[in-house]
Amino acid sequence: MRYKLTIAYDGAAYCGWQRQPDPVPTVQRTIELAAGAIVSHPVTVAGSSRTDTGVHARGQVAVMETTCDLEPQRLRMAINSRLPADISIRQLEPCSAEFDVSRATCKRYRYLIWNQRDRPVFQRHYVYHYWHPLQIEPMRQACRQFLGGHDFMAFSSRTEDRLSTVRHIYHCDIGQRGPIMIFSVEGSGFLYHMVRNMVGTVVEVGRGHWPSDCIPRILQSKDRSQAGPCAPAQGLCLQWIRF
Amino acid sequence: MRYKLTIAYDGAAYCGWQRQPDPVPTVQRTIELAAGAIVSHPVTVAGSSRTDTGVHARGQVAVMETTCDLEPQRLRMAINSRLPADISIRQLEPCSAEFDVSRATCKRYRYLIWNQRDRPVFQRHYVYHYWHPLQIEPMRQACRQFLGGHDFMAFSSRTEDRLSTVRHIYHCDIGQRGPIMIFSVEGSGFLYHMVRNMVGTVVEVGRGHWPSDCIPRILQSKDRSQAGPCAPAQGLCLQWIRF
Repeated sequence: MRYKLTIAYDGAAYCGWQRQPDPVPTVQRTIELAAGAIVSHPVTVAGSSRTDTGVHARGQVAVMETTCDLEPQRLRMAINSRLPADISIRQLEPCSAEFDVSRATCKRYRYLIWNQRDRPVFQRHYVYHYWHPLQIEPMRQACRQFLGGHDFMAFSSRTEDRLSTVRHIYHCDIGQRGPIMIFSVEGSGFLYHMVRNMVGTVVEVGRGHWPSDCIPRILQSKDRSQAGPCAPAQGLCLQWIRF
Repeated sequence: MRYKLTIAYDGAAYCGWQRQPDPVPTVQRTIELAAGAIVSHPVTVAGSSRTDTGVHARGQVAVMETTCDLEPQRLRMAINSRLPADISIRQLEPCSAEFDVSRATCKRYRYLIWNQRDRPVFQRHYVYHYWHPLQIEPMRQACRQFLGGHDFMAFSSRTEDRLSTVRHIYHCDIGQRGPIMIFSVEGSGFLYHMVRNMVGTVVEVGRGHWPSDCIPRILQSKDRSQAGPCAPAQGLCLQWIRF
């Protein structure tokens, strides 16, 4: 049987999603060990997004294959009972052999900025505390300039070995709820650190350091040093993935 | 100078509010050490509510006296800069010598119940995970029966040495937002574990174990064993205190 898993996790305690050669705690490894103990054979859980150290997810998607014939809902409950409190399999459903997690058509990320001098006592693990005042209107204008297809090389934190660094952004906006600014972006895919570098750049605009029309120039430069700093991991959450 | 402090804290890492003879981490001691380092003399921070181990607060109130003549807003910032990320002084304002934190007229507590089989990955430190289905309407009816003045002996977890165990409840209700049930209560004061024992009892009603009109009988019994179990500390938060 082949299953599609939808997974939520608090990334704080993990060195990212992906299993690593060293025995460091990763989300993938933790789920593989839990699932393996239930189905009584080694399991590979292949994820759609390789979230970084400290990044959270509400809707990571992965596939796994097993010879275990437990009913899906029971299998999900059984694996969850073996998982720590910061990881939960929200859905587990049969999928065809053709379903390929690497072929997502759209992913949504959210980034939270706590824009108040006072500390976020209760949300401190899920927001970036940026206490200098930010102007939201220029930030909104900057967000709009990411829409469409662009070469995002300038927003990637490493030399990409991928065939193309062009990505399509379908939605990009920023809103506010009390002291929290909510940045949201949907796109065909994202390069390494791309969302966090986009946020770091938009924050520079909101701070008044850069004009709100700086994005096209940065994109064209294809030069990482032209974009803003990489915003901290803890504010980022992978919301959902469509196929 | 005498100051009134309004304080928020995540109680997870502390053995409650109150300073103890043993050097265990408590919120009071942590603030006293931070404030003492700023004002350069030992400081006593007297709180209005002795919250238990693991209980949170958004509006604990305390007083402190100091010879330091820093402007209040600067003093607040300075003490906050010495505090860990899970404690924050939200307000600090001068108060008269007559202001007495032990003479609150009304306190509000909130208790969150995560009523879904799946785990609360992101709110796990702030909710009580109770996965059996709960009927909210009988719980609401039970809440209403706490209103008014009653002897709450049956809802106190220890033999009280206070003069009276009569307390007045001005508001008591339960609502729902997604998977979270929100119990809120306002009263003249609360006995040891009283809110958590009220919640534990209301949960028994919601589960269908006890009828929704059981509260008057339990109050009259003045017998702790007649009330429900004490709900876990982590779901509880002291919201505000009025004087």
